[in-house]
Amino acid sequence: MREVTARDLDSLAIGAAILGTGGGGDPFIGKVMAQQAMEEEGPVLLMDPDELDDGALVLPTAMMGAPTVMVEKVPEGMETVRALRAEERRLGRKADATSPIECGGVNSQIPFVAAARTRLPVVDGDGMGRAFPELQMETFHVYGVPGTPAVVADERGAVVTIETEDNFQLEWIARGVTIRMGGHAMLVDYPMSGAEFKRTAIRGTVSMGIRIGEAVEGAHKLGVHPVQAVCSATQDTIYGRGIPLFEGKVVDVERRTREGFAVGHALLQGLGADEGSTLDVRFQNENLVAIRDGKPIASVPDLICLLDSERATAVTTERLRYGQRITAIGIPTPEIMRSKEALKVWGPAAFGYDDLAFHPLEQRFATYYRINGVPAEKEKYLEPSPKP
Amino acid sequence: MREVTARDLDSLAIGAAILGTGGGGDPFIGKVMAQQAMEEEGPVLLMDPDELDDGALVLPTAMMGAPTVMVEKVPEGMETVRALRAEERRLGRKADATSPIECGGVNSQIPFVAAARTRLPVVDGDGMGRAFPELQMETFHVYGVPGTPAVVADERGAVVTIETEDNFQLEWIARGVTIRMGGHAMLVDYPMSGAEFKRTAIRGTVSMGIRIGEAVEGAHKLGVHPVQAVCSATQDTIYGRGIPLFEGKVVDVERRTREGFAVGHALLQGLGADEGSTLDVRFQNENLVAIRDGKPIASVPDLICLLDSERATAVTTERLRYGQRITAIGIPTPEIMRSKEALKVWGPAAFGYDDLAFHPLEQRFATYYRINGVPAEKEKYLEPSPKP
Repeated sequence: MREVTARDLDSLAIGAAILGTGGGGDPFIGKVMAQQAMEEEGPVLLMDPDELDDGALVLPTAMMGAPTVMVEKVPEGMETVRALRAEERRLGRKADATSPIECGGVNSQIPFVAAARTRLPVVDGDGMGRAFPELQMETFHVYGVPGTPAVVADERGAVVTIETEDNFQLEWIARGVTIRMGGHAMLVDYPMSGAEFKRTAIRGTVSMGIRIGEAVEGAHKLGVHPVQAVCSATQDTIYGRGIPLFEGKVVDVERRTREGFAVGHALLQGLGADEGSTLDVRFQNENLVAIRDGKPIASVPDLICLLDSERATAVTTERLRYGQRITAIGIPTPEIMRSKEALKVWGPAAFGYDDLAFHPLEQRFATYYRINGVPAEKEKYLEPSPKP
Repeated sequence: MREVTARDLDSLAIGAAILGTGGGGDPFIGKVMAQQAMEEEGPVLLMDPDELDDGALVLPTAMMGAPTVMVEKVPEGMETVRALRAEERRLGRKADATSPIECGGVNSQIPFVAAARTRLPVVDGDGMGRAFPELQMETFHVYGVPGTPAVVADERGAVVTIETEDNFQLEWIARGVTIRMGGHAMLVDYPMSGAEFKRTAIRGTVSMGIRIGEAVEGAHKLGVHPVQAVCSATQDTIYGRGIPLFEGKVVDVERRTREGFAVGHALLQGLGADEGSTLDVRFQNENLVAIRDGKPIASVPDLICLLDSERATAVTTERLRYGQRITAIGIPTPEIMRSKEALKVWGPAAFGYDDLAFHPLEQRFATYYRINGVPAEKEKYLEPSPKP
């Protein structure tokens, strides 16, 4: 258990934006909300999952909706508390902790808003290990935790409690409610015991988000290129070391809001070593697939992160603009996100890429891994494999 | 308090279809559900509002959605019980009675399904006195009862509890949920005390629905034309006597499902005394305005009912077909539905007819009333008035 400072939230905002893989919403708005809440209410404790009692009640908190809308319609801040209180009332007991369901993007910060306002600790782990666009895209779902009762609340005082037989129907109904609430809302879902959290969560993602942010901020002092610092920051975690995929300039962006999602693609024209090539990045809120010269080189659930080539800060879907210089990197996801059951939920086919099988990044880029050092648990993938 | 029989529900289905003014859904499906529930669970008691304790808890029950969808996707039957139980759980106490919120159409029957399955009595009164398309169109709303907590439940086991600051937002969110649930769902809203029900409900509408049905069924035996029998059936109630408006043949129907509503119009070409004239009936689920040769002759909240010219059974919006012989009648609504506050909620302007002021039917048709006898409480309207 350690105290989280306003400074940590600054770092987390930078790191979680990168883990957002283009989506998850700009963490800046959430960070301001969380820092204000901590200033008014006092510090928040971050606890390791192992510190949770098996019988404890964890109520994950999040924002739901299209990040493109959130930029224009800022949340009020107390929605998340109203949602949490309604969930407690529904369950007939008080929460012992909150956690992210999605440590990428703004949803890395929302639990700190809820935690500060309710004096709860935040558990260091989440259910996506990144950002994903839909509520059933959670290790919690994959490994059998019901998503409901869930609560969606808006800034006008509306509180909607949803109970469904399955988590796909939760996504479907909660999305409908969120759209009617104006495009985004605050959410509590996957209420679970400490034992369930320890069994199903992706651990350490909040502190990893802070560490990635610190890497970006501290790189210049250490004489390291910030993109290189980001790639190194995940090396000793359950994630793989980050891999530079492409350096280029944005020459085309198509983006529309459809059924509550930001859907489209960005086209990069290569620079430097990548001159003469293109990278096409398709997204639905988050980056789903990266296609180099017509050939897929990375896909969900591995992380495809578009970084500002100079500063290594994340460029989110809604901030993509013509002419930006971007370095795309890939980060291999932990094994808990790559099981057969997990890939069914968030592999390429879950997003309509039926012909695209998931191919682990560190396997595609085995040579890069051999040169740059490989985390032990990924070594099994390093048999000879086709180069990208 | 009196026992309601399966026979009563047959009559109520006929009467409530007429009170549905084209909308509210075909009561047949609800009747079958209610009769089956009564067969399995035992009889249901209908109680006068005056028999309610002031402190009793009344939980109105209803179906929500587009009747055009309900014809194809039949409800499962236990949704309404799940909704009622969820509402009880939310309020922390058991219901003492249920009631309709809308005695027109299928929603005259749904409370009998809920009542039979939960052994509750049904209170003889409702909040619309007819059918209307939206949840804030209730005397309960007009006279200050909050619509929430409300519960929407579907046949797949989903239960959604909605709390809002106002009843318009309830309609907006519940409609969104209903659309996501496939077009219709079961609803509990306007939970209220016995005192509130007595103060705000339109009384006696269930028994009036039964009486109208009996009039249609018994007319031939009494040697009365069924349309005439319907017109007489409301004479000694808080409603006015029915007025034949137009006899004709359907020559055009336009109908589309938009945002969960059946929207459109029907054009009648006059027959008999109305030969050479047309009647244009505009609807949004329910008939809103009747326009004779370009001039409005009846409008909400007065009832515009399209009846089969031979049998006087209601022809609902979704069953309108080219070539049908129709007699349109109008039924003047009670005073509680015509206050300034009430007309703001369901007068013509509430449906987009901004230039059309509500003009009480019995005033437009004063001559007809003079010849056919007028209920005492309507006499004040019978000063000289322009003929239609």
